[in-house]
Amino acid sequence: MATNVTETTNTNQDRTEETTAMASLTTCVAGRNVIHGPSIWTDLLELFKRHPDPVYFGDGSPDKDLIPLERLKEASIRAWDDAPGCLGYGEQQGFAPLRDLIVERMRPLGIEGSADRILVTSGSTQGLDLACRVFLEPGDVVLLENPTFLGATEIFRAYEARLVPVDTDADGMVMDALEAALIAEPRTKMIYTIPTFQNPTGSTMPLERRQRLVELARQHNVAVLEDDPYSELRYDGDVVAPLVALDHNVIYLGTFSKTIAPGIRCGWTLAPAGIHRLLVANREVSDISNDRIMMRTVYHAAEGFLTDHVAGSLDVYRSRRDAMLGALGEYLPETVTWSHPDGGFFVWITLPEHINATDLANQAADNGVIYFPGHWFYPNADEFNSIRLSYSTVPEDRIVEGIRRLGETLRSAPGA
Amino acid sequence: MATNVTETTNTNQDRTEETTAMASLTTCVAGRNVIHGPSIWTDLLELFKRHPDPVYFGDGSPDKDLIPLERLKEASIRAWDDAPGCLGYGEQQGFAPLRDLIVERMRPLGIEGSADRILVTSGSTQGLDLACRVFLEPGDVVLLENPTFLGATEIFRAYEARLVPVDTDADGMVMDALEAALIAEPRTKMIYTIPTFQNPTGSTMPLERRQRLVELARQHNVAVLEDDPYSELRYDGDVVAPLVALDHNVIYLGTFSKTIAPGIRCGWTLAPAGIHRLLVANREVSDISNDRIMMRTVYHAAEGFLTDHVAGSLDVYRSRRDAMLGALGEYLPETVTWSHPDGGFFVWITLPEHINATDLANQAADNGVIYFPGHWFYPNADEFNSIRLSYSTVPEDRIVEGIRRLGETLRSAPGA
Repeated sequence: MATNVTETTNTNQDRTEETTAMASLTTCVAGRNVIHGPSIWTDLLELFKRHPDPVYFGDGSPDKDLIPLERLKEASIRAWDDAPGCLGYGEQQGFAPLRDLIVERMRPLGIEGSADRILVTSGSTQGLDLACRVFLEPGDVVLLENPTFLGATEIFRAYEARLVPVDTDADGMVMDALEAALIAEPRTKMIYTIPTFQNPTGSTMPLERRQRLVELARQHNVAVLEDDPYSELRYDGDVVAPLVALDHNVIYLGTFSKTIAPGIRCGWTLAPAGIHRLLVANREVSDISNDRIMMRTVYHAAEGFLTDHVAGSLDVYRSRRDAMLGALGEYLPETVTWSHPDGGFFVWITLPEHINATDLANQAADNGVIYFPGHWFYPNADEFNSIRLSYSTVPEDRIVEGIRRLGETLRSAPGA
Repeated sequence: MATNVTETTNTNQDRTEETTAMASLTTCVAGRNVIHGPSIWTDLLELFKRHPDPVYFGDGSPDKDLIPLERLKEASIRAWDDAPGCLGYGEQQGFAPLRDLIVERMRPLGIEGSADRILVTSGSTQGLDLACRVFLEPGDVVLLENPTFLGATEIFRAYEARLVPVDTDADGMVMDALEAALIAEPRTKMIYTIPTFQNPTGSTMPLERRQRLVELARQHNVAVLEDDPYSELRYDGDVVAPLVALDHNVIYLGTFSKTIAPGIRCGWTLAPAGIHRLLVANREVSDISNDRIMMRTVYHAAEGFLTDHVAGSLDVYRSRRDAMLGALGEYLPETVTWSHPDGGFFVWITLPEHINATDLANQAADNGVIYFPGHWFYPNADEFNSIRLSYSTVPEDRIVEGIRRLGETLRSAPGA
C-alpha cells in the first residue's frame, strides 16, 4: 500500500502550477507516510452499489437508534450553563469531575484507578497514538493478537514499528506463543491486546492467561497496552478482571465510543504515574485537550443516566447476538465455524481454507450482504478464509435475512 | 529540560511495587520524550501566589467575557437537533458545510480555498502536529522566526527536528537571513512563520517579504507552514495577503480559538491536494475526527453570528491595545522600546540588554504584575531582555495599572 503522490492532470493554469510544485513537495514527505495507501472505505463504498438493500455487518459502532440523543442534549445544555470560565485553554488531563466518574465506572470491572492517573483522550484511538509516542522508536517491535483491530495496526505502523503477530485460539492470545515471541524479539517494546470481547474475534481471555501475560511482560520489561472498549457490554457470564486490575503497570485504554457514541470522540487512558505524565505531555503537543464542553456533557451523562442507558442497551445487543448465532446455525454450511462471544459487537467466521472471503465479498454484495473480510485484521494479511460480522447496528429480522444471504453465497462458492 | 522519570517514595505496598516496575518501564520510553521537562505553568502558578491581585498579561486567549456563550449554546442545541445519524465514526475531513463556510471566511483575507482541501482539526495545534507527521524525519531542519510561538517549537522538537531560528525585525522574518539559512541548511524541510500579528512580537510581514518568502521556498523545495490565528483580529490598516494567497503550496493553519474560544478545540488546515490527502490520512491514525457535535455547533455559529461577533470584539481589543500603548508611553523608562501591533493580542517589550526579564519576573509578581519572559519564545533560549504582554483579556483600567506596576518594577531594577 505505497503512497501514490502523482497528481491527475488539470487544465487550469493555477492548478497546473500547484500540481508541479506540489509533486516536488510530496517528494520530501517523511518515511512514515508510506503506510497511507488507499482506504478500505473506498472498496466498501463500491460494495454498497451492488444491491438495492444490502444488510451491512461492518459497523463497529453502537446502534445510532440507541444513542440517547435527547438526554445528551440536556446534558450538553447543562455543560454550556457551566461554561463561563471554562472555554479557555486548560484541562490538559481532562475535566476533573469526569475523571473522578471514570474511576467510578471502572470499579465494577475490578479496576482501582485514581483520577490523577487518568487522561481524557479524543477516543481510545488517541490513547493508542499517545502510547506509541511514549514508547516507540522506528524498528521497535509490537506483539499483538493475530488477528487484531485494524485501526491499531495502522497506528503502530505510523510509528514505523515492526508488528509481530502472536497466535490466538478461542481463548485469545496463546501464552506459550507470546513467551516465544518475547524471547525471539528482544526489541519488543509493547504487547497490544484486546482481552475482552476482542475485535475482530469476539473472544475473551481467561483469568489465568491474563495473569501469565502480565507476568511475562514484567519479566521482559515491556509495556502492556490493554484496549478495552467493550467490557461494559457483557451479555452473559461474569466479569474477568482486566489486565490493569492485575498489574498497575498496564496502560489501559477506555472509551465512551461504544457506550455513548463514537462521534463525541471521548475516551481515556489509565497508566502508572511516570507513564501518565508522559502521556499528558505528549497530548499537549498533539492537540492540547478534548473539547471542554463535550467533556462536561459526558460528565453530566455519566453522573446521570449512562449506567441505566448501558443496561438497557445490553438487552438489545444480547438479542441481536442471539439472533445472529441462531441464524448462523440455521443457514451456514457445516464446513463453517464461528465464535460465541459473551459480549461486544462481533462474531468471527472461519471458512474452509480454500475459500477466499475477500474474493467472495463481491458475490456476497451482489447477493445483498456486506461484511469485513478477515484478512484486513491479520497484520501480515496472510489469512483469507475468515469474516468479521458485527450485529450491533442490525435489527434481528435483518440479521436473519443477512445471514441467510451469506449462507446462500457461501453454498454457491466453488467447493464450499 | 531533560525528563525526570524518578518516582517519589510511597509507603503503600501496591504503590511501591508499581514504582519499581514503572521505573523500569520508563527506562524504555522513546527518545522523543526527552523534551518533556517541567511545564512553564508550574513557574507561573508560583508567581500568582506573590500578590493578592496581580494583573496578568500572559493570556493568549480571547476574553472569556466576550465569548458569545448564549448564542453558542443555541447553536449547540441546533447541532444536537441535527444529530440523528451523525454520531458514528466519520467526517474525517470535517463536517462538509463547515468546510464550505471556512472557505467563505477566508475569502476576505484574499484566500481562494476549496472545501476539498480543508481538514478540520482539534485547534491549529493539531494542524501543526499533522504537518510535522507529514514532513519531518528526526534531524530535519525547521526554520522559524526568532522569537516565535512556544507551542510550535515544542511540537517541532517532539518530532526530533533541529530548529534554526531566523532573525526578525519590526517587519517580521528578515528575508536575507532566511535565504542564508536555506543555503546553510540543506536538510531544511519546513519554514514555519506567523506572518500576521506575530506571536510573541505582534509584527506583520509586509507583502514584498511574503512574496520573497514563497519564492525562496519554491527555489529550495521546502514546505511553508503559515500559522494564522490572528488575521481576523485586525484593528487598523489593510489586509496583507496571507502567504497561501500568494502560493497554493503553502500549508495554512487557521483556528476558531481566537474568534470563538480555545476550549472548543476547532481549527483547520488548507493545503495542496497531495499534502492534504496525507494530512487527512495522518489525522485518521491520530484521533479519527473532531467531535461531530462541536463541528456542527461551530457551523451554526459561523453561518449565523460569528462575523458580527468578531466585528464587535475588534472594538474592545482595539481599545485595550490603545490603552496598553498609551500606558507604556506614560510609565516605562525611556530605555525600553516596544512593538505597535495592528491586530492580534500581543505587544513585545525590549529592555536594555543587561536587564534579565526572567529574573525580574519574581519582583514584578511581588509588585502585582505577571508577564511571559521573552526568552521562552527564543528557540535557543538565548535572549533574556524581552517581555511578551497580552492585552486581550485585561480591562483598560487594569491594563493601565499593570503597566504602571511594570514601570515601577523596571525603574527599581539595577541599572534600569
